[in-house]
Amino acid sequence: MRVRNKPWAKDKIAKYPKIVIKNPQEHAGNWNRLFNRSAPIHLEIGTGKGKFVTGMAKAHPDINFIGIELQESVIVSALDKCLEQELDNVKLLNADARELSEYFAESEISAIYLNFSDPWPKSRHEKRRLTYHTFLAQYQYILDQNGQINLKTDNQGLFEYSLESFSRYGMLIKNISLDLHNSSFEGNVTTEYEEKFSKKGQRIYRCEAVFRDQ
Amino acid sequence: MRVRNKPWAKDKIAKYPKIVIKNPQEHAGNWNRLFNRSAPIHLEIGTGKGKFVTGMAKAHPDINFIGIELQESVIVSALDKCLEQELDNVKLLNADARELSEYFAESEISAIYLNFSDPWPKSRHEKRRLTYHTFLAQYQYILDQNGQINLKTDNQGLFEYSLESFSRYGMLIKNISLDLHNSSFEGNVTTEYEEKFSKKGQRIYRCEAVFRDQ
Ligand SMILES: C[S@@+](CC[C@H](N)C(=O)[O-])C[C@H]1O[C@@H](n2cnc3c(N)ncnc32)[C@H](O)[C@@H]1O
Ligand SMILES: C[S@@+](CC[C@H](N)C(=O)[O-])C[C@H]1O[C@@H](n2cnc3c(N)ncnc32)[C@H](O)[C@@H]1O
Repeated sequence: MRVRNKPWAKDKIAKYPKIVIKNPQEHAGNWNRLFNRSAPIHLEIGTGKGKFVTGMAKAHPDINFIGIELQESVIVSALDKCLEQELDNVKLLNADARELSEYFAESEISAIYLNFSDPWPKSRHEKRRLTYHTFLAQYQYILDQNGQINLKTDNQGLFEYSLESFSRYGMLIKNISLDLHNSSFEGNVTTEYEEKFSKKGQRIYRCEAVFRDQ
Repeated sequence: MRVRNKPWAKDKIAKYPKIVIKNPQEHAGNWNRLFNRSAPIHLEIGTGKGKFVTGMAKAHPDINFIGIELQESVIVSALDKCLEQELDNVKLLNADARELSEYFAESEISAIYLNFSDPWPKSRHEKRRLTYHTFLAQYQYILDQNGQINLKTDNQGLFEYSLESFSRYGMLIKNISLDLHNSSFEGNVTTEYEEKFSKKGQRIYRCEAVFRDQ
């Protein structure tokens, strides 16, 4: 755990309980109350240092954004960005995405972002990939009728796996791009990992997926 | 039409009516009779000069192969390969794939190969792409219960489109490879275009797709 390197992270996070939420279970069904307004909620899973979630919040002021991140040492950087930019449409959850369906009510979320998720390349770790079917079942539960998953990654294996997993689950896959940064896609907001990998000359893959018959 | 450059192609083809079939409608439901044996039939659409269909026929002697190709000037090279290699498990159809469902009976085919199909990048030509839904409907009709489509291409746009089209049609997409020549895929038989494009350093994309609930 990188948290050892940042012992102050825990303290800093504790100072902003209205931004970094610790017990998301308690807010299931009532997230818009925390935002003090009723608006569609978009959720990023594995937010990291928060470049994407804060950039999106700035670009889309009418959306309420939530970023989930397990590591305190990382989420603290996302907190810094929220404070610097004085964003009131971002909440951060310092929590484990494996329990996602306990944090939100059915259909409470309008879009999910999976950005540069850990690829877990070994087949014995398939269950940990954020597009494994047990995760898809949770996404299906929390997403509303038109809710969609937006996935970006530089990892070829994870992208191949995710397309197959979406297909196997019966989802509709849309707007596939096998080279996002040389595509016609507009309004892309980059993440920390995206900057890093595209500078190295790696291609960025992207797709959208929706559940049918919801 | 490149056929002007090879006026002898028509004559040569006419000499081998048992290999290059001209009126496929007449054989719908009875293809295995032409092969003088009962075996699964695999079909390549847009066979070109025949490297793939003849290579596959050699590697899989228990399968009956059919290659469809519109242009006489091109199919004549595939005929040459069949003659040189004395293959008795390949038939060539000099015909237009748009009428596919008139050439075969329901469920007569076990696998379809689409290799480096013309990409038709302009959206007004979408209907000409071999993975447009009107083609998929014909493939569904002629394929048997476990029948699958195997697609290879170097063309990023066509690959993105095809994955989306398969998904929209409700098909199950399997074994996606975004870099076939650097993957663990075994037994790949290359085509003329595949050799050409991979020598230029282009990636080769591949996937399989099956119809559900057949
Ligand atoms: C490879 S990083 C990508 C970070 C960011 N999305 C980006 O693109 O720069 C993956 C992040 O997901 C977080 N993560 C992994 N599994 C998680 C889980 N089960 N719940 C919450 N966060 C998780 C990790 O802590 C890590 O910060
Ligand atoms: C780009 S070439 C690829 C040839 C070969 N598959 C390869 O990979 O080397 C496409 C071929 O498909 C053939 N073709 C295109 N549309 C067709 C149709 N409707 N029916 C039959 N053949 C067609 C063209 O004549 C051409 O030879």
